[in-house]
Amino acid sequence: MDVFEIHKRKTGKIEVNSTVEVNDRETLSNIYTPNVGKICMEIKDKPETVRDYTMAGKMIAVISDGTAVLGFGDIGPAAALPVMEGKCVIFKEFAGLNAFPLCLSEKDPEEIIKTVKRLAVNFAAINLEDISAPRCFEIESRLNDELDIPIVHDDQHGTAIVTLAALMGAIKLTGKEKVKIVVSGAGAAGNAITKLLVAAKDEISIGDIGIYDSKGLVASDRSDLDKYKMELAKITGQEKTKSIKEGMVGADIFIGVSVANAIDIEMVKSMNENSIVFAMANPTPEIMPDEAIRGGALIVATGRSDIPNQINNALAYPGVFKGLLEMKANKITTEMKLLAAKAIYEYNLNQLSNVQLLPSILDKKVPGIIAQALQRK
Amino acid sequence: MDVFEIHKRKTGKIEVNSTVEVNDRETLSNIYTPNVGKICMEIKDKPETVRDYTMAGKMIAVISDGTAVLGFGDIGPAAALPVMEGKCVIFKEFAGLNAFPLCLSEKDPEEIIKTVKRLAVNFAAINLEDISAPRCFEIESRLNDELDIPIVHDDQHGTAIVTLAALMGAIKLTGKEKVKIVVSGAGAAGNAITKLLVAAKDEISIGDIGIYDSKGLVASDRSDLDKYKMELAKITGQEKTKSIKEGMVGADIFIGVSVANAIDIEMVKSMNENSIVFAMANPTPEIMPDEAIRGGALIVATGRSDIPNQINNALAYPGVFKGLLEMKANKITTEMKLLAAKAIYEYNLNQLSNVQLLPSILDKKVPGIIAQALQRK
Repeated sequence: MDVFEIHKRKTGKIEVNSTVEVNDRETLSNIYTPNVGKICMEIKDKPETVRDYTMAGKMIAVISDGTAVLGFGDIGPAAALPVMEGKCVIFKEFAGLNAFPLCLSEKDPEEIIKTVKRLAVNFAAINLEDISAPRCFEIESRLNDELDIPIVHDDQHGTAIVTLAALMGAIKLTGKEKVKIVVSGAGAAGNAITKLLVAAKDEISIGDIGIYDSKGLVASDRSDLDKYKMELAKITGQEKTKSIKEGMVGADIFIGVSVANAIDIEMVKSMNENSIVFAMANPTPEIMPDEAIRGGALIVATGRSDIPNQINNALAYPGVFKGLLEMKANKITTEMKLLAAKAIYEYNLNQLSNVQLLPSILDKKVPGIIAQALQRK
Repeated sequence: MDVFEIHKRKTGKIEVNSTVEVNDRETLSNIYTPNVGKICMEIKDKPETVRDYTMAGKMIAVISDGTAVLGFGDIGPAAALPVMEGKCVIFKEFAGLNAFPLCLSEKDPEEIIKTVKRLAVNFAAINLEDISAPRCFEIESRLNDELDIPIVHDDQHGTAIVTLAALMGAIKLTGKEKVKIVVSGAGAAGNAITKLLVAAKDEISIGDIGIYDSKGLVASDRSDLDKYKMELAKITGQEKTKSIKEGMVGADIFIGVSVANAIDIEMVKSMNENSIVFAMANPTPEIMPDEAIRGGALIVATGRSDIPNQINNALAYPGVFKGLLEMKANKITTEMKLLAAKAIYEYNLNQLSNVQLLPSILDKKVPGIIAQALQRK
């Protein structure tokens, strides 16, 4: 079916249904006045029971301000809504979860925080989505501090989990050790990927890791870094900035979450033998796969569904939220993210190859496997 | 099924479902990246198409701050959620509409207005619910001025519509003319009922109408009235205050939307012959029906489902919103409310009796009839 027809047919892609059929007075008075009052009073007396008797025990909010949508950037809340509805469809279709999109006509981080706090009582978890960096860091961390349900900015953590899972596969295939990693792009995804890689010392042996923004290597000798980039300089131990062209020399792994054509074939040629190139900028990668291969890359992945080795956070987030809800967790931890990545990697081991670093995005077993893995912590 | 079991079984009473089955890559890329981007760009270029391609063309928000819930008053947003979910169930079960509850942890009217404005882009209409008076008047009117979708505070307008419909039936049965009406309670419901009755001059011949709060008749000689009550004094033309006991003398119709036991049998006895008593305080009426009848009332109605003649806004609001959405109206008007009341009354004419002023609340034909009537305007 045509993409416009899919969206127009039912006016969007989700619907709200009742779980109770109402055909008699008794049922009506149980779901509404007067008997529903007994549930109201129970919740008033024991506030935690709101998670037993209402949707607040299961419903996920998918919240965006529309400032960093797909490859488009700041297109506003109305234009962002089809993406958020799409996420809710995936939550239901792949993990059986209930999720509702809320796009906010507001860009001020303080006001977004206030608004989400006012809404939180209705939800069991919040998926922040497509909020631009560095605003997303402040919003996510403040909400996690101030609310007792998990707040997950998927552009950070979903992307980091699937990237780590794919990288574990690629490293297994190439047998690389003490790898040198170049991360291109210090936005939401680059930030989270770098932090998760640094934390993954039991999964990946890292010799050197550097994250690059448009000015070059994020290093402690730069005077233009915000607090989030200063932290990245610190955890990667980079003290002296340089260009990405310099950084690519002798690198084993390139991870791009930046912009189209950020690297060229010469830079790939300067990498170590059997190099791994993840060029995930959307819709146009940092370098096209065929060019990366001509430059000597052994394994190439992108964010695109029309090229083998798609790295897409949709593989991770349904399972991550399923696990968080089943555990009644109030936060996602680094340990959970590592467990999720490892579970995806292990599930894919029997079919792992240079063109299949990850399970199929359509494999509906994956969310259950991730959810189980989270609960092992 | 037990009321606790109904609420616990599926963790609340609503669920969010996908309207698209996702089993192949093509569908996945149409509902999500990359093809969903075409819809995003279409909406960015033509903002009004958000109503064609997303849930914003059909979804109703049921929004409350939990300050005036059922007969309980201010029980807070968590304890209010079962009621709001119940409204969403009724929207779906009776009118096939999609509605989602949002209880707000915020009481300041300015902040509630800001919050609803930030959320409005996601919705086709907003049902404000169980917000205490007089805050609800300011919130509703400001939002109606500042947003381009209908904002309906159902405690006001739904209640006013069903009350007028029931009253038209009662007047038909008693043949009364130039009636004297006493409205007890000047909160959200009393305010809206009084205004709608005053506007219903073609449906009801009114000799005198007075609305009473806990201090007595709302009249222009009182110095303690807020602007909403001053307006009520003006439109009812009442210049000199008096007690409700005095007001009941020679009255034809009593409409109670106040508190338990607000009137007694002596006051009913002082009314005109064949008096009509609507004692709608929840859960305990202003006077119990058997007592009103012993006082001489010919027709008695309450808000209770266990007594004949229930006057419940659930009879009106599914159809009202169905009509508003079908018309793509951006406001509910007084004319629409009159048309809705008249449609309910006329639909019930062939079964009209002293104990059946209104169609059954379970009659699923009513919403369609109201929706059609609205579109006659």
